[in-house]
Parts: sequence; structure tokens; C-alpha cells
Amino acid sequence: MSLTNASPADAAAGAKSASHTLATLPALARNNALTAIHDALAKSKDEILAANARDLVLASKAAENGELSLSIVSRLDLGKKGKWEDMLKGILDVRELEDPVGKVTLRTRLDDGMELERISCPIGVLLIIFEARPEVIANIASLAIKSGNAAILKGGKESTESFIAISKVISAALESTEVPNSAVQLVTTRDVIPQLLELEQYIDLVIPRGSNELVRYIKSSTKIPVLGHADGLCSVFLEHTADPEMAVKVIVDSKTTYPAACNSTETLLVEECALKTLLPPVAEALLAKGVSLRCDAGVRKALEAALPAHSSAILQTATEEDFRTEHLSLTLSVKVVSDLADAIQHINSHGSHHTDAILTSSSELAEKFMSSIDSGNVFWNTSTRMSDGMRYGFGTEVGISTNKIHARGPVGLEGLMIYKYKIRGAGHLTANYGEGKGQRRFKHEQLPL
Amino acid sequence: MSLTNASPADAAAGAKSASHTLATLPALARNNALTAIHDALAKSKDEILAANARDLVLASKAAENGELSLSIVSRLDLGKKGKWEDMLKGILDVRELEDPVGKVTLRTRLDDGMELERISCPIGVLLIIFEARPEVIANIASLAIKSGNAAILKGGKESTESFIAISKVISAALESTEVPNSAVQLVTTRDVIPQLLELEQYIDLVIPRGSNELVRYIKSSTKIPVLGHADGLCSVFLEHTADPEMAVKVIVDSKTTYPAACNSTETLLVEECALKTLLPPVAEALLAKGVSLRCDAGVRKALEAALPAHSSAILQTATEEDFRTEHLSLTLSVKVVSDLADAIQHINSHGSHHTDAILTSSSELAEKFMSSIDSGNVFWNTSTRMSDGMRYGFGTEVGISTNKIHARGPVGLEGLMIYKYKIRGAGHLTANYGEGKGQRRFKHEQLPL
Repeated sequence: MSLTNASPADAAAGAKSASHTLATLPALARNNALTAIHDALAKSKDEILAANARDLVLASKAAENGELSLSIVSRLDLGKKGKWEDMLKGILDVRELEDPVGKVTLRTRLDDGMELERISCPIGVLLIIFEARPEVIANIASLAIKSGNAAILKGGKESTESFIAISKVISAALESTEVPNSAVQLVTTRDVIPQLLELEQYIDLVIPRGSNELVRYIKSSTKIPVLGHADGLCSVFLEHTADPEMAVKVIVDSKTTYPAACNSTETLLVEECALKTLLPPVAEALLAKGVSLRCDAGVRKALEAALPAHSSAILQTATEEDFRTEHLSLTLSVKVVSDLADAIQHINSHGSHHTDAILTSSSELAEKFMSSIDSGNVFWNTSTRMSDGMRYGFGTEVGISTNKIHARGPVGLEGLMIYKYKIRGAGHLTANYGEGKGQRRFKHEQLPL
Repeated sequence: MSLTNASPADAAAGAKSASHTLATLPALARNNALTAIHDALAKSKDEILAANARDLVLASKAAENGELSLSIVSRLDLGKKGKWEDMLKGILDVRELEDPVGKVTLRTRLDDGMELERISCPIGVLLIIFEARPEVIANIASLAIKSGNAAILKGGKESTESFIAISKVISAALESTEVPNSAVQLVTTRDVIPQLLELEQYIDLVIPRGSNELVRYIKSSTKIPVLGHADGLCSVFLEHTADPEMAVKVIVDSKTTYPAACNSTETLLVEECALKTLLPPVAEALLAKGVSLRCDAGVRKALEAALPAHSSAILQTATEEDFRTEHLSLTLSVKVVSDLADAIQHINSHGSHHTDAILTSSSELAEKFMSSIDSGNVFWNTSTRMSDGMRYGFGTEVGISTNKIHARGPVGLEGLMIYKYKIRGAGHLTANYGEGKGQRRFKHEQLPL
């Protein structure tokens, strides 16, 4: 890994060239590099957290002046409970995963002496652009090396100190490994993102990690494929047969455990006949956690009748815009729907196709919901926050994708692979095959993998 | 299927809405629609070929006037030997393929009572834009219906008559099936491509079929993912241990069986020590088939010494540009390379990552070649023209992709699918999991599929 001041084009050309070497390294060499990174980071915890603290001081000041959102400050904090440990554990988890390179996913005998094989191979060069979340450097470097991809990393100015501290440690650790130095490039020069986004001859995939604005800007500024999501507008549908106690707990978990996360719930849809039964205790629990409830007319009326005066006094009125807004804070939009079909229609037209959950006792309705909702992650009786690479067992993730093409949902190693088709023949000619007299027919015999 | 004069936005909105219905149709209903299309087309062969002949007359005139390339005229001809039969057989082949919808590709027990499942589902709405090649309508309609995707089809003006004839037949055939009418929309209004390419809220994937210019224009004009390839600059590397007789046959097959096809070979790389042994008979066979050989200096010198005067007299001199050109005609660029590494370097930097082949008796060199070449299809001892969905056993294809993301190589049903993650829980909360005391650990137990 090199901390480079090279021009974006030189850095990308170097990464492309290194990607060809990295792609041919055996799994052991790639795994050894991950061990080296893990050990070096573990030894340097104090200096990295000190650098992160300096970033946090600046960011907090910027937030006080209204120049930075509090959700960015929250994402920046590497000292936040469990975050450092999760980052280190993620590296080892990735190392322990099965090697994703060279997996045979199709084998067909086309004819005697000629076999077709489809095998997994690295995509090539990844460009990772991130704002806060300094732990992303370690996540991405691990996933890139494990998957045999080269990576170009460009961090945001909010995490500059953390970024440089982590990258120095990783850079030193990689010196002793077989991973080529230019396979992971850290670009520290400023204002180079527009130049990087034009290098489609070198860069195969862009992965933005950061605010909706960053992702939207990148999606609209490049011809290179972009993996990720701009919005995380997740919904929970509370159906009237849901277990009341479970409903309270799951909705509180979905909304309050990390409101700045993309998998936090932004909209609660309540079935009409559950307004007086299931909703009031849910609303009380949310209000007790400090959640602002933006209610449509039906919800507001039901809650005003059911809740004590001090609770109903702090209810807010939802606008149509609230149901298209990712609050990223302790604010929840609440709406009444007439039935499952109404909920499905609302989510498919208002949501961001990220993660949506149904709370119900009916497996039939749950299956219908999960089949009909056009989102990457669809849950029955669990929190929308369960949508996460670590929780899914992917080790770590490069992001959560709402793309309809390639990878969707939490993207781990598999999402960083593509495949190639190989044919081993014995001089087979296309001219010999066809429907005509004397022509050969393909056998198309599926072989064991 | 409807032949629509609706606005592009209305057509796309209709397709989106229909895609939700189509995605829930059982396999039998989708297969029955394919049977109906096949039978109706078979019955209407004469009228469709008559319409195609009218297109051909106009196209040939345009070609004579230099307004249209001969390769487009060649692609337009539905009466070409085997093409009609291949088209009909493709529909039945697709029908017989395993249902790609709802396949479980991952099952993990996250914890007691909570399972994660990844299942395949349709992408949504496909926009297919094609120029000549009227058989594409039947291919695409089959693959779209089988895969549960809605499709919007926009044909080029060269194939207008063929296009309308085929679409009328398909439209009538679908009337008797469960596939919703607006699931396959044929847009016949003119000059609507720019409008269609902006409808990213409705269209999930664009598949252009046609000239390099069409594909390049589309890739540079839309934010919607594009599946396909602009160039098919395929190479064959002739290594000195290749079987001489096989080398002649495979290279002739690669170059001459359909020069306008994207999988035809454009560049022949000859190992230096094979210049005097293997190359001369290959060159003679190609010249006998009418192939123009554009040779670099080393190749030209070797051939002038080896070939009879009447053959060496028609050799041409290659420019650097020739090695970056997809001739799409009976012209072949020929270059000497010093060894395998030199060949790999040339192909990775000059090719279009479509299909490349090595002719050699060494399995070691063949494996090295196939691992190192960064192309969707890499072959050993067979023709580059083997790169084809029908030959691969995919039934038919929507195109051949050089994308590094999602589908690559011939794209059949699998390339028209994406997946979603489902979790079935029992009130599981994210807050309960972690490394802390008293917190639960995820089980991440892989379950049988």
C-alpha cells in the first residue's frame, strides 16, 4: 500500500498493472497480508485513536457552526463503543473466509474433448471514495486484497488525520508481504475526485461510502459502474396479528440503535385495524427513547385518543415529503395503511429498495410481503438494522447496494468478483456444428463442479 | 406484447407496473407463453420472411450508396442459412431451461429461529435497443418472459418491416396467455431513444444490440446500467508447439465463418519461433479464403520468404491502428510476438476483453494464458467463434457482455436475474448481538440449499 502523491492517472495505471499480479497471487499470500495488517493495526491502536480524536475535535466544531451534520460526526468516531474491535475482527473474519478466486460455477461438456468452465476472478481495480468512517480503509483494504482486486482509496477531509494514521500503519505492514505495493493506492492529493471518475480505462468499479450527497454526486459524475446506495429509506409494516411485545422491541431496535445508519427505519406503516391495539405501546416506547413521531392524520387521531396528554402533545404532523425523507436522526414518519397490498404499494413507490420488514404472525402474509417488495433485503419479524455484512456472516462489507444489477444488499467478497468463461478444446470448429446433415450437435452435458 | 404508440414514459411506467405481476407468475404460465410465441412464429414464416426481404432490398440499396455497411446488411438477413431455424429453436431451448426465478443461492442460520436466505428474482424492466438482427426480438422476448422481466423493445429503422411483422405475430400469440400485455412493449415511434434512456426510475437495464457506434452512443447517453460490448476485438495466439493442421483449421474457422460477428478473430499473434513453421500454411489457407492479411514487418518478411510470389504479392502492411481495429470483414491483422508474456501483454492492452484463444500443445502455457488474459472468454485450441450463448448451451442470448460487473460473456437467463436477501426472524434484535458480556454471538451456520 502506498501513500501516493502521484497524479490520479499514474496511480490508476499503477493499480491496473498491479491488479494483474495480485490476481495471480495464491490465497496464502493474500491471507498473510491480512494477518500483517491486523497485527500492525492492533499494535498502533493508541496513535490511531489519537489521530481520530484530532479529526473529531475539528468535526465537532464544524458541526457546532452548522458546517457538518451530526450524523457525519457520529460516523467519524472510531473510539465509539465496539467500533475499533469490530474493525480488527473484520480483518480476521475476511481472512478466514473461503478463497473467492478461481471458484468453478459452471462446467459443461460442449462436445467430446471440449469443456466449458466458468470461474470466478477479480474485477480488477476498485476506486473507493469515502467521507467519514475511517474504519472503511481497513474494511476495504482487507476485502480488496482477499478478493485479488487492486484498490484506489480517496478519503474525505473530515477523516484526514485518521486516514493518514491508518494508511501509514497498513503501508508499513504490507512491506513484508507479497502483495505488490501499488495494488492498494492511497490518494492524498486534494480535489482529484473528478479526475479519478474519468479514468474508466483503469478503474472497473467505484464504491462511494458516505453521505447521500456524496453518492448522488458520484453516480451523476462517472461512466464507471457505481456500487452502493444513495438513500436508506427503510420501512417497517406493522400488521395487526403481530406479537405486541415483539413489535415494540423490534421497532425500537430498528429506529434507535444507530439512527445515522442507512439500515435504520425511517417509516412505520401501521395497518388500520392495529391503530388502537398495537400502535399505542409502540409509540410510547419510541417517545420514551426520544423519537419524534411525524404522524399522518389517521395515526395522529388514533394516538391522541390513546396516549396520555403529555405524550400526545409532542406528536408532530407528517407531510408527504416526510415519507420520502431519510431522516438519519431520531425522527420517524408514521402512516396508516389499509392492508398488506397498500403497504406493498407504498413501500415500492416511496422506499429506496434497501431494507424493509413486516411484523406479523402470518407466514402467508410474510412470504407475500417478502416476494412482492422490490428491495435488496426483506425481513419478517426482525429489525431492519439486521441488514449488515457482519451480521450476515460476510466478515465485513464494502457497502450495501440497492443496485438491480450485480451485487445487492450487503456486499462482501462475492460482490467483488466477476467470472470468465474458459473453453479447453482439441481443435473444435464452429463450422462443424449445426442442424444440417452431417453436422455435429453440441452435447451440453452439465458436469460436476 | 403490445405494439405501442404511447409516450416513452407511459410505456415504461406500464412495463414497470407489469413487471411486478410478471415476477409473480408461476413457471408454467411463463413457459406456456413461450410455446404460444414459437407456434405462432412457425406458422407465419412466409409473411415474416417476405417482410424481411423488403427490409433487405432497401438496406442493400443503402449499402450500394455507401449509406449502410455491408456487415449491417448481412446481420439483417433472416433468410440466411439456419438463422430462422436457430431463432425458433432458441425459443424452445429457453422454455426447456430450468426456471431461474426463486433459486436459493445462500442459506445461513444467523441464530436460533432466524435464517437468512438469498434468492434469485427478476431485475425488473429491460430496455432493448437493436438495429439490424430482427431475430433479436424473438430472442429477447423469450428470455424476458422466461426470466420474469418486463421488456421495452426499440428496433432500428433498417429492420422496421421485419420488426413489425414479428411483433404482430408475437402480440397475437400472447393474447391467449397469462403474461400481461404491457410486460413486453414494442415502441415504434421514432426518435425516442434519448427519452427512453432518461427513464431510470422505470428502466433497470439497457441492452443494446447493434453496431459499435450504437453501443457507444448508448453507453455515453444514459445513467442506467448498460449490458453489452462496443467492440469485439478478438485475438488468437499461435504458439510454436501448436498442432499445425489444427492451427490452420481453427484460425480459418475463427476468421472466415461469419466475419461480421463480434466473436470473429481480428488479430493473429504469432510466436517468433513459429514464423517459418506454423505461419506459412495458415497464411496460405487464409489467403485462399479471400482474407486480406495486414502484417507487421516481422510477419511480412517471414511470409515473403515462405510463400509463392502470387501470394506474397497481396500481403498488406499493418499500421499500429490495425491492431486496435475491429475489421468486421475478411481482413486480419497479423503480428509477431516474442513469447507468451508478450502475447498476454498485447492482448490485455489492445483487445476488447471479449474472446481470446491460444493454440498450443502445452497445457501449462494454455492455463497461464487463460488465467492471465483479462477477457470474458478465454479458449485453448478452439475457435473464438465458439463464444456464443447457443453454443454454450444457454438456449439463446441477449448479447455478449464485456462488462466487469454483473454478467460477462454470452448472457442468457442468469444474466437477467438479480437476488434479494430474506430474513425470517422471531423478534430478533440487533442490540442483543456483540462482543460484550451477556451479548449473543451470531451462529452463521451454512444450511443446505
